[in-house]
Amino acid sequence: MVSEKLVALRKLMRQHGIQAYLVPSTDPHQSEYPPALWERRKWLSEFTGSAGDLVITLEKAGLCTDSRYFLQAEEQLRGSGIALFKMGLPETPSQTQWLKQELSPGSKVGIDPWVFSYQSAKKMQEELASREIQLVSIEENLVDAIWEDRPPLPPDPIHVYPEKFSGESVASKLKRLRAKMSEEGARAHVVTTLDNIAWLYNIRGNDVAYNPVAIAYAVVTEQDAFLFTPLNKVTEEVLQHLEGQVQIYAYEDLENHLRGLARERARVWLDPEAVNRRVVDLLENGADLLFKPCPITRFKAIKNATEIAGMKAAHLRDGVAMAKFLCWLEKTVPQGGVTELSASEKLRQLRAQQELFRDLSFPTIASYGAHGAIVHYTPTPESDVELRPEGIFLIDSGGQYLDGTTDITRTVALGEPTAEQKDRFTRILKGHLQLTMTRFPRNTAGNQLDTIARKPLWDIGLNYGHGTGHGVGVYLNVHEGPQGISYYRGIGVALEPGMVLTNEPAFYKDGEYGMRVENMMVVVEDQRNPNPETNFLTFENITWCPIDLRLVEKSLLDEKEVEFLNNYHRQVRERLSPHLNPEEQAWLEEATRPI
Amino acid sequence: MVSEKLVALRKLMRQHGIQAYLVPSTDPHQSEYPPALWERRKWLSEFTGSAGDLVITLEKAGLCTDSRYFLQAEEQLRGSGIALFKMGLPETPSQTQWLKQELSPGSKVGIDPWVFSYQSAKKMQEELASREIQLVSIEENLVDAIWEDRPPLPPDPIHVYPEKFSGESVASKLKRLRAKMSEEGARAHVVTTLDNIAWLYNIRGNDVAYNPVAIAYAVVTEQDAFLFTPLNKVTEEVLQHLEGQVQIYAYEDLENHLRGLARERARVWLDPEAVNRRVVDLLENGADLLFKPCPITRFKAIKNATEIAGMKAAHLRDGVAMAKFLCWLEKTVPQGGVTELSASEKLRQLRAQQELFRDLSFPTIASYGAHGAIVHYTPTPESDVELRPEGIFLIDSGGQYLDGTTDITRTVALGEPTAEQKDRFTRILKGHLQLTMTRFPRNTAGNQLDTIARKPLWDIGLNYGHGTGHGVGVYLNVHEGPQGISYYRGIGVALEPGMVLTNEPAFYKDGEYGMRVENMMVVVEDQRNPNPETNFLTFENITWCPIDLRLVEKSLLDEKEVEFLNNYHRQVRERLSPHLNPEEQAWLEEATRPI
Repeated sequence: MVSEKLVALRKLMRQHGIQAYLVPSTDPHQSEYPPALWERRKWLSEFTGSAGDLVITLEKAGLCTDSRYFLQAEEQLRGSGIALFKMGLPETPSQTQWLKQELSPGSKVGIDPWVFSYQSAKKMQEELASREIQLVSIEENLVDAIWEDRPPLPPDPIHVYPEKFSGESVASKLKRLRAKMSEEGARAHVVTTLDNIAWLYNIRGNDVAYNPVAIAYAVVTEQDAFLFTPLNKVTEEVLQHLEGQVQIYAYEDLENHLRGLARERARVWLDPEAVNRRVVDLLENGADLLFKPCPITRFKAIKNATEIAGMKAAHLRDGVAMAKFLCWLEKTVPQGGVTELSASEKLRQLRAQQELFRDLSFPTIASYGAHGAIVHYTPTPESDVELRPEGIFLIDSGGQYLDGTTDITRTVALGEPTAEQKDRFTRILKGHLQLTMTRFPRNTAGNQLDTIARKPLWDIGLNYGHGTGHGVGVYLNVHEGPQGISYYRGIGVALEPGMVLTNEPAFYKDGEYGMRVENMMVVVEDQRNPNPETNFLTFENITWCPIDLRLVEKSLLDEKEVEFLNNYHRQVRERLSPHLNPEEQAWLEEATRPI
Repeated sequence: MVSEKLVALRKLMRQHGIQAYLVPSTDPHQSEYPPALWERRKWLSEFTGSAGDLVITLEKAGLCTDSRYFLQAEEQLRGSGIALFKMGLPETPSQTQWLKQELSPGSKVGIDPWVFSYQSAKKMQEELASREIQLVSIEENLVDAIWEDRPPLPPDPIHVYPEKFSGESVASKLKRLRAKMSEEGARAHVVTTLDNIAWLYNIRGNDVAYNPVAIAYAVVTEQDAFLFTPLNKVTEEVLQHLEGQVQIYAYEDLENHLRGLARERARVWLDPEAVNRRVVDLLENGADLLFKPCPITRFKAIKNATEIAGMKAAHLRDGVAMAKFLCWLEKTVPQGGVTELSASEKLRQLRAQQELFRDLSFPTIASYGAHGAIVHYTPTPESDVELRPEGIFLIDSGGQYLDGTTDITRTVALGEPTAEQKDRFTRILKGHLQLTMTRFPRNTAGNQLDTIARKPLWDIGLNYGHGTGHGVGVYLNVHEGPQGISYYRGIGVALEPGMVLTNEPAFYKDGEYGMRVENMMVVVEDQRNPNPETNFLTFENITWCPIDLRLVEKSLLDEKEVEFLNNYHRQVRERLSPHLNPEEQAWLEEATRPI
């Protein structure tokens, strides 16, 4: 029971002399989906949502979560003694504001320094200081101390990611990283972000849901490179792959290694948003710390020719699965029995039949009717509904293939759409096409392009409340920085050839429907620039799957948009048709007809 | 002679024990155009350009300026012993980089703390610290010490700016400011920015070229308000206007007053980008400093109904002067004898004939042919050329009227334009019209709209290298923050109803021509939104003057753009015609014909 857990925790808090303890949902690697052993907030509060931070004082406890989870959290927290703090509402205090209300000056707030980034701990420290409240690191995690049957570190083996997919050797990657380190005079660089480690060492894992990464730390110095990971993950194949380049140590050995760097007074490069506070604690008495974004993040964002070829191949197979799914959906919904969850499962099976498929790249968003207006909706057995031959169905999904990662959204009219629905859909399609067709100067940041996708909705006073695009990895995380196309993401990050981004304008009508069109694109040199001396960039689309023409109001599109759409559909037909059966081919022919 | 001045200065530098001294072109108020007594860099270097910072060591001296002034600076610095540092070129070191090369660790760099903003001094201090070089404040300005015949503070009287133009009493403005101060727990706010002081106290002056402001400081506390200004500027009218609300002290008394605030340990609000280092020096031992943008800046940016009415009235009169000018230009150029300078003077005279005219709002940019491609070109007697009945003429100018400030650019084809010129002009016009017509959600920042104006040029791989719009004051500075429409300006500053901005997309072809279309607009609630519940904003145009239709390629405009342009020209005709003579009316009729 939650209340018993809180009693035990507060006993430990008193022993440590702290008046509050923070249990966030992050892990030492700032993972989007932490493995079970680090789901301390979930275990302690019994709230199962993906986002939510617990704050516990000696008398009270509260969970901060966002609007996606208000209903679920109210339900799951009932009787637990944990209050719900609805984040984003004007009357809700932030975690630190609440602590400043509850605690008297001189109080201490405890954290596990492994699970706070350096930057977030620093910010909190500064805010609390104005009421003379101290943030203190406690080495032992107090939840772990009371958690019997806590799961172990996941034992899954690490896999080698071969150069035929990665396109660059570990030696070459290390050389590029060391050149950057040398520019900054850094002796060592500590990497805590799992996808950066996977990219650098050409390895993949199975420790985090949807993200094919392994639990690890990396340290790179001028001469050496180190991988710290549970040794039971290290197979003979991995040993051979890294031999002579990367020394492998146990996951726990990181601490000693960092103490060594501190003793040597080395200049150590850390990413302030990624590195956890504990790494900084271990280094700061001794080492000369350089806080700057990890250079691997940008290396990884710019895909090489092999990676781009892999992404294109994966997208073709993913498009085949999507086309088979959409054909099946159109024919099966009228027969009854298809639900959001069963449709998601059907699509998963179709993807799984494709070569090199390994997993989904995120939980499928399959939302029918009013569910579509809930941006982060994913169906559960409780919320699942049957699809009927009417209304709007939105499906946002993606696959992890060995050669690439996909992310695609299609919106389908299951019956005759209304004029309003056609108008709204055509406007988001218009924004989507305009963004794909945009040519732009070098040094343009993604946030400068965001408005292009919104403009057709703005024209009638409408908008959507999220960014237009995010970066995507190659058989890695489906959300990848630093690039983005958004009024809030990727500010100042120039788009460069080889960067891969989603393009997903949308419209949501509360209580009625949601619509989104999402393809992926690669930034390329603009070969068709009528003034080629200016050396502009543009996008190349890599997602192939029909866009529902029943939702398109042709009169809203201009000539170029119609031409681009028809040309897109012609290519979809030519690329996918050879991989479909005759029934599906006939369906595709109709679905991709010129308008 | 420059070299003698440098010898004298270096003697003083040795006496003060410093190895370098910095002479920037700014003044204690960060004015865009400093009055003569603060033009120390100009006096010392004899370089007359508006931008340029001098750095002097015991052996060397250098002037940092930008590409606008490379030729002029080379000319004027010849034989002076001052090297030219061409800023913006990859091989040119920054001022601090150069100092770090030239000076050994332990050196001292002297500055006059009055002429460095807190923020810029802090940044420089941090950069120099990495080579253990110290930045030291020297109270006495070393240039003044050797400058015989240095001009005095300008003696021009302060004028009261009546409420019929400002639309808000000093009492009301002080009340709003004090409410903000109270929110931050600030006992006092020190204002060093001249246009913020002019706005707050409803006063204007004549001390700075083009900006109708007076040299002064202001301090506002919970109970009192102070104006520090040369007392010979204070007329009976000003005394009466401020009586009972604002206490007037001599300009020099600021120092004592700040020492008093330090002694009282008051919490003092300072704008880190605006406040000079000296004010901080005087306060920091004692006062509790709060660094945050000055709230007056945002108050001033949002114009009230009286100010907007005044701006509209001023723009109508300014449009009359512009129409008379364009009619005169068309008829007179073929007769010969019109030059860039004489045309500028003709336009000045026509503005001066309008009611409430006081001055120009900035130096007129009148650029013919290839001069047009030099973005910051202003004609001088040396560069002046005659306009012939061929090619492209660009004129960017504005007036200071008692009821408002204007800024307008028109591009005129003096002969038959080429197809390329028509194409380029129509694209910038298209961007200009699209931006004016944009409706956008609340909380949209200007930088989100910048791309809308660029898009038609991007479509053919072209661009312009400056922002699209800046804020403008009401009988105040023509460049006003924090709002802006630019990929680099006004990041994160949401546009709000009542903000006034320019809209000036452009195209420059090196060595051939430059083109720009600039109107001013006010942010307003969008009354025509088809989904009014979303509460969108839009722009209302306030500049009335024909756009040269000879440069318009109609086939590039869409229906809405043509309709908007024709409707604009109809309004230009209706508004201006009653104020023109028959010859001008006939010209206007033709110039505003529907296309």
